[in-house]
Parts: sequence; structure tokens; C-alpha cells
Amino acid sequence: MATVRSRLAHSVKLATRHTKTRSFSSTSQYGSDTASTTLSIASLLDRGPADPNNVCVNGFVRSVRSQKRRSFVDLGDGSTLEPLQALLSPEQAQSLSTGTAVRLKGAWKESRFPESQTHELHVTAIDILGSSDAATNPIQKKYQTKEFLRTIPHLRSRTPFNSTLLRLRSDCISEITRFLAAEGFTQTHTPIITSSDCEGAGQVFHLESSHKGPISEHDDGTFFRSPKYLTVSSQLHLEALAQSIGNVWTLSPTFRAEKSDTKRHLSEFYMLELEMSFVEDMSVVMNVVEKLVQSITLPLLTSRVGKELLATRTRDGEETGESSEWLRDRWLAMKGPWPRITYTEAIQILQTSGINFTNTPQWGLGLSIEHEQHVASVFKKPVFVTQYPRDIKPFYMLPSRESTDMGETVDCFDLLLPEAGELVGGSMREHRLDPLIASMRSSGMIPHGPPEFISDEQLGSLKWYVDLRRWGSVPHGGFGLGFDRLLGYLAGVQNIRDVNTFPRWVGRCEC
Amino acid sequence: MATVRSRLAHSVKLATRHTKTRSFSSTSQYGSDTASTTLSIASLLDRGPADPNNVCVNGFVRSVRSQKRRSFVDLGDGSTLEPLQALLSPEQAQSLSTGTAVRLKGAWKESRFPESQTHELHVTAIDILGSSDAATNPIQKKYQTKEFLRTIPHLRSRTPFNSTLLRLRSDCISEITRFLAAEGFTQTHTPIITSSDCEGAGQVFHLESSHKGPISEHDDGTFFRSPKYLTVSSQLHLEALAQSIGNVWTLSPTFRAEKSDTKRHLSEFYMLELEMSFVEDMSVVMNVVEKLVQSITLPLLTSRVGKELLATRTRDGEETGESSEWLRDRWLAMKGPWPRITYTEAIQILQTSGINFTNTPQWGLGLSIEHEQHVASVFKKPVFVTQYPRDIKPFYMLPSRESTDMGETVDCFDLLLPEAGELVGGSMREHRLDPLIASMRSSGMIPHGPPEFISDEQLGSLKWYVDLRRWGSVPHGGFGLGFDRLLGYLAGVQNIRDVNTFPRWVGRCEC
Repeated sequence: MATVRSRLAHSVKLATRHTKTRSFSSTSQYGSDTASTTLSIASLLDRGPADPNNVCVNGFVRSVRSQKRRSFVDLGDGSTLEPLQALLSPEQAQSLSTGTAVRLKGAWKESRFPESQTHELHVTAIDILGSSDAATNPIQKKYQTKEFLRTIPHLRSRTPFNSTLLRLRSDCISEITRFLAAEGFTQTHTPIITSSDCEGAGQVFHLESSHKGPISEHDDGTFFRSPKYLTVSSQLHLEALAQSIGNVWTLSPTFRAEKSDTKRHLSEFYMLELEMSFVEDMSVVMNVVEKLVQSITLPLLTSRVGKELLATRTRDGEETGESSEWLRDRWLAMKGPWPRITYTEAIQILQTSGINFTNTPQWGLGLSIEHEQHVASVFKKPVFVTQYPRDIKPFYMLPSRESTDMGETVDCFDLLLPEAGELVGGSMREHRLDPLIASMRSSGMIPHGPPEFISDEQLGSLKWYVDLRRWGSVPHGGFGLGFDRLLGYLAGVQNIRDVNTFPRWVGRCEC
Repeated sequence: MATVRSRLAHSVKLATRHTKTRSFSSTSQYGSDTASTTLSIASLLDRGPADPNNVCVNGFVRSVRSQKRRSFVDLGDGSTLEPLQALLSPEQAQSLSTGTAVRLKGAWKESRFPESQTHELHVTAIDILGSSDAATNPIQKKYQTKEFLRTIPHLRSRTPFNSTLLRLRSDCISEITRFLAAEGFTQTHTPIITSSDCEGAGQVFHLESSHKGPISEHDDGTFFRSPKYLTVSSQLHLEALAQSIGNVWTLSPTFRAEKSDTKRHLSEFYMLELEMSFVEDMSVVMNVVEKLVQSITLPLLTSRVGKELLATRTRDGEETGESSEWLRDRWLAMKGPWPRITYTEAIQILQTSGINFTNTPQWGLGLSIEHEQHVASVFKKPVFVTQYPRDIKPFYMLPSRESTDMGETVDCFDLLLPEAGELVGGSMREHRLDPLIASMRSSGMIPHGPPEFISDEQLGSLKWYVDLRRWGSVPHGGFGLGFDRLLGYLAGVQNIRDVNTFPRWVGRCEC
């Protein structure tokens, strides 16, 4: 025992010695080893350096212009759209080209061309951290088409506009997390691998595993004993959690194995889904949608990312077409209150519009994208369209208390955006056991027969979902919001493939 | 044209009318339709009601005790571990049983038993929102084993302790998001469907799609034209983003198709991964780990969730075994600074420990869980172990500048926790092109030969990763943290299946 103790004492001594001799700075500036002086370019441009004669900055060369006696370098580090302007000797600039990674040291001085930037860095020392062959670099100083950039998602984020999109995404996640926590919502992690297809439709990705052969004598040789899919929605799992702890949400990857080759669809995308319990009035759910989307949109009018998004509108070679006023107006149109009309009213608006739609608007059919865009354009604002016909909506939606002259409807809503169409879909959920089973029967999901004879086998992969209605089920409702679509809308990016960081669609999964 | 205009005017008028007549309250209390008086139980217990004579609360019955002239109900709504105590007439309580969902209205009065709770609700009106058959309800008032609860993850969150775990998860995500945003890190969304297996080892889930037959004449009939997997790590994609915009992170689902049937492994789990660029000193990366983990641990000493986790220690039927002092000490041990020792020193500590380990500790072999636990127990704190032998680590790690007498090492670290073992693994990455290719060769990932003859085909699904070293590559490093493991550690939950909300492991994917 004495021996063990003395060995332990030796171990502690050995380890303690090394703890003490090993220095580890506890600076809050993690970005660099030269913590005291290194700033991001965004910080430097915003606030200036602590010591103007001792500035150190890291980044990638965006462009080099050399004159006889001096060279001008535009440097970016992904922290802002604006480059840092640096002044070097032609010798210092000799081995620089687009993409070279450098560490520059020097003095922060007033610019001789204050119309472009107030200060510039007069470089005294340069470290080449990573060289770049301009001839082969796929990211050139000049404009690259969006189509080309989609083939190199691993390098695309090096362009200034794509770095802005990444910062927009980050800012929006932060703000949503803050907003929903303040409102008392619990953020949850719902599963990716699931047994059921929520919508009862749509193509799903199936899972295999590299595990071969049976796991035990009782299984069929698959990893999970039965077929599994990649989730198409977190709604069902959120309903389980909402019935336990109240208002919940998740921002989760979602999948569709659809062949849709459009501007609006991806095989993998992020959905923000939210579920509220003890709620009978759907307007309460719509209020959350409205406040949530406003909470991330209106800050853009003053934030750095917002300014950058507007600035790209006046530049060559970036998201072109529409002006910065157009984008600002899009954000301003987000101010509330947002109109709420029924599906029946939307059909009336479409039918009396005098427009010759490709698909004739008709009660009982879904709204096509041209319909959605027209309805939202009438109001020049986001519009909630509620109470769609029951026959065109999924089994889990709660029937409306009053039906229309045209037929039965459900308590659901879509949020339509001007120029873009659907962003959000939500509904009240059928929380009563027998009507839910009846709805599953009439949707053809389970065989017909009296409720008391329903078996676990018949319910199959939805047994657990039906279970939620058995012991203390309460009125509840929620929604799903296409997060990548929202970011594209806020950024004025037309194609979802240009706003998703590593887009996957049919035939395309680049890295 | 006049006709179109008048139709449009009609549409707007129609829609506007409905916007105006449709009321939608813009209360910030989304939890209920009776917004003015409904509070969560947590709010009510913490702050009391605005009007003590007009209280409305929603929840699920946890227990009913009936005496001759009155009944006592414990009500929970998932917002806190503590139940609300309600006083009813036996008639009011007649149809209540464990799990019944109710809305109670009444007066908030001082309790006659203030040692348990200061106030109780004297119920004047009760709405049964959802009945519950106590005889069949799998969630009983009495204790259920953890093993049984794992078979019903969709109902498990209804138990008080599991609702605390959900709130712990939410609080931790919020705090991490806030902390890393304040430190200038960009939150990103890395892909789930990937082409490559980061570690070059481990079982991966393969993807199929329900799409059958060729998509075009040029493909092989698979959805993405080539085999795809569920990601085992976001590291490679984070490296791409860090080389563009600096310090980045993600909290993302991660997958392993391993047959491990242990307390520490799942097939699907959340990893927090982070990557920093322009960093040469690994201690900078370890500083982030330390501050990040502390940022979510130390608030537990005073937060509601922290108090609840301690309270469950003294209760029957919940996470048992160790005391609340034990759990508080675990949190207090997180205070810094954390020791940092090398792998070589760790081996010395193990070899001189006098302990008869199942696996004999030996330089050149990995540390087993018993080794990790012993090393951390010596320090009674989280410990960083750095510079592992090169031969037992993945190809992408940067070789240490100095080798040991025993052999070559890499700049990597594991964070070991007392009693739990590894929580975090990180490293500096090989950022130089030729050494990276040499390392891929010696790992057997690509054929041998001179660097200049390496072809895109040979690099295969890692071509894009190698590309990152071609144009302005900079020193960088990062880490991955097992988020579910961390939550389990903080909560004192021994088995990861009890802290992950919908756990999946070999043969098990319940809903």
C-alpha cells in the first residue's frame, strides 16, 4: 500500500511539474499566436489598432498592383467583404499573387485616398505562410460564374460574397437561438436516422451499413433490424417532446431523394422546426413565425452583414441584377403585421386576377409556385394562407371546426413570400386518438376496421406516434421553415445551391 | 388593362378586409391561448403570478392523493423538476390519474406545509384536455428502470429527470452559441452526406436512395453517381471553411455503423467540431476547449438546471448511486487551469502506477479507457494529453517538430475526464501539400510514387481536401467534442443512451 501511494505521489509530482513548466496563454484572442497585436480585418477596419505602429494582420491576397516604387495589395481574411489595403515595396510583393496567405506587420496610417478607405497598412515585414500559383488557382481576381463556383464548394467560400453568406448564416443561427431561448423554447436534437416517412410521400434516402451478416440469430442482417431512412422532417419527434416539456424547436438536417432539379430544392438542407403544446388557436403559432423571421431580418438594416449584402448589389461580379434598394425593400417589407387569408380567399384572388396561369387555380388543388408568388405580390408582404382542403394535406393535420361551402379544410398555414413563394408550412395537429386513426385509414396508411381492433403491427413504424395520443394528449401545433431558403431570400440569392454551403442535389455531391 | 387593375384592387380589398377582421394577438407569451394568465410552472414557482386570485396553469398529472374532503395533485409541465401542488375537491379529482393533461384555474395561496413548497394552487375550475388510463400508461408514478425507459424514448421525456436532461441540452447549446459568437467564431452547417471517410477507418453507413434506374445515360444508377456515406466527422469540411473565413465551428450529427454495444458509443450522436486558422501553437486550440467547456459547466453551480441535477441525486428512483456533493465536485473540478502532459509522460505515469491494468501500458500503443481514467484520476481534473505516436494517429495530423527518444509523434491532444476518459480529440493539421501526400502514401491511402505524378484519380474522394493545400494554405488546427458525452458527464448519467434523446445503436432505433 505504501508502495502504491509513493508511486501515485511520484506520478502527481511528475505531472504537476510539467503542468507548471508548460506555458499556456489564456488570451481571449484565439485567432493567432501573436495574440497581442493580431486583429481580424473586420475589427481593424471598424475600430482601428491599439498601437498604430505595431499592427499584425493575417489574410489572403485578393489582388496585387505593382508600380515602379510601390505595390498595393488588397488583403482579405473572410471576416468582412472589405479588403484591407496594404502598401508594400515591389520586392516585398514579388512572390505574391491571388490567394497567397500572408502575415503582414506594419504601421496603420491615414490613406492618401480616403474616399475608398480611411487607413492603409504600411508594411514593414511580410511572412509568406502559404504560396499560391495564380495560373492554376480556380479562384481568380475576376468574376467567376455561379455555375462554376458550384463545382468547387470547398474553395467557393474564399470569394468575398460567399464569406458574407457564411456570416449571414452564423448571425441568423445565433439570433434565432437567442430569441427562442428568451421566449422559453427548448432547443432539441431530433434524430436523422428514422423509421418513418413523416409526410407519407416523397422520395427518401435509404440506409445501408457496411455491417454484413446477421448481428444475432434473431435479426435479418441489417444494422437496425428493419429498414431505416434519412429524416424528411423532425415534426413527429418534436411532437413527442412538446407533449412532455412544452414548446420545443430544432434546426436539423433534412433529406429528400427527389430528382427535382430546380432553384428551390436540395437533397440535403436545414429545416427549422418548432412545436408548441397547450395551444388551440393557430394564430399563436403564426405569431411565432412572424416574430422569429422578423427577429433575424430587421437587424440586417443596421448590421455589418446587412451592409455587406447591400454593398454587393453595386459591385460587378457578384449577386447581380437587382439593386441594393430592391434588397432593402425586401427586408423592410418584413415589418408586420403580415396579412392572413384563407386558402379559399387565395383561390378567389387568383381566379379574379385576370392572369393566365400555367396551372388554372381551382379549389381543391394545391397552389403552384406561380400562384404563391402572385398572392404574395398582391400584398407586397409575407402572407399567411390558411385552411387548405383536407384532401391535399397530410393525415396528421387537425380538421377545421367549420368547413367551407367547397369542402372540408384543415387548420394549417403556409407562409408565402413575395417573389419566392412558400417559406414555412405549419398546422395544428390531430391530437385525438380515434380521429387520428380514422385519418390514417382514410389516407390508406393502415387497413380499415373499428378503432378498438387496431393492432401494433398495423400501425407499424407509426405505433409510437399514435401512442402520443393515448396518455394525456393535448392540443398542439407547429411549423417547419426552410432555413436555406430563408437565407437565400434575405441575401437576394436566387438559387438555393448558391446559399447552401455544400449543396447536394441529384447527381451532385462534390465533396 | 383597366380590368386587370380593377381586379387587382378587388383582390387587395378582399384580402385587406380579412386581414383586418382576423384578430391575432401579439403577446409574447406563446405557451397558451389564455396568454394573460397562463404561466409555465417554473415561472409560477420562481416568480409567482401577477394576480394570485386568477391563476391558470397547464400540465400533466404526476400523482393524485385523495382524502375524504380534498385531493392533492402534483402537476408537471416539463419546465421544471418541481411539481406544482394543487388542492382540489375529490369530485374535481375524480377522473384524474397519472398522465392526465389538464388546465387548472384557481387561487395561489400560501401552503400549509411550507417546508415542501411555499404556495399551492387552490383549484376553482378544471379542464380535462387529455385523459390517461393509469392502468396502461407506461410512465408510472413509481420508478421505471433506465433499461425500460430506453425502449420508449417517445415517452421517456415525460419523466421529470429526462425533462431536466432536455433543458440541460438546450441551455448548453445556447451558451455555446453565445460564447463562440462573442469570441468571433462563425457557426457553419457542414454536410451529412459525404464522399469520404475522414478517419480512414471505422464502419460507415452507406446511402441508398429510393430512386431506381439511371438518372441519365452517363450515370451508374445511383442517386449521386458514386457511393455516399453518412459523415463520421465534419473536420475536413471545416478545414475548407477555416481556410476561407478563419475560425469556424459546427454542432452536427455524426454517425458510426460500429457494433460497439457500450455505455459510451452510439450510431448517431452530436459532435461539436471547431477549426482555427493562422494558428501555429496548439496551446491556443486547447485554450478554446478549456474555456468552452468551462463556459457551460460553471453556470450549473447556480442555474435552475444545475439545481435540478443536484436535487435528483437525493431522490429515490432517479439517477442514483452518487451524491449531489459528488456531482458538484465534478463541476468544481472543471475550474482551470487544466494540466497538460505529453503522451510519453502519461505512459510513464501508467507504468509507475503499480496498477495491474488489463492492457499493459506501452509506448506506441493507444491508451485504453482504463488508462485514460487513471491518468485523469491522478490529477482529479480534466487533463490534456498531447503528442501521441505518429503511427497510431490519422494521416492528416501535423508531425511534432521534435521527436521523442521513443519515436515520432504528432501535434495532437486528447482531453481526458476523471471517471469518464476521452471527451475531446484535436490536433494541428498537416497544411503543407507534399508532406500531406507523403502521409497519405505511408497510410496506404494512395499508391506510392513521386508527388508530381499524383493524379486526381489516385486522390479520389480526397482530391478536394488535398486541393486546400494548393493555393494559400495556412497553419491550422481544431478539435471534435462528443456533445452527448459531455452532457452525460455534466448530468452524472453513466450511459450515453440515457442522455441522447432518441438513441440509436446496433439493432436499436426505436422510433
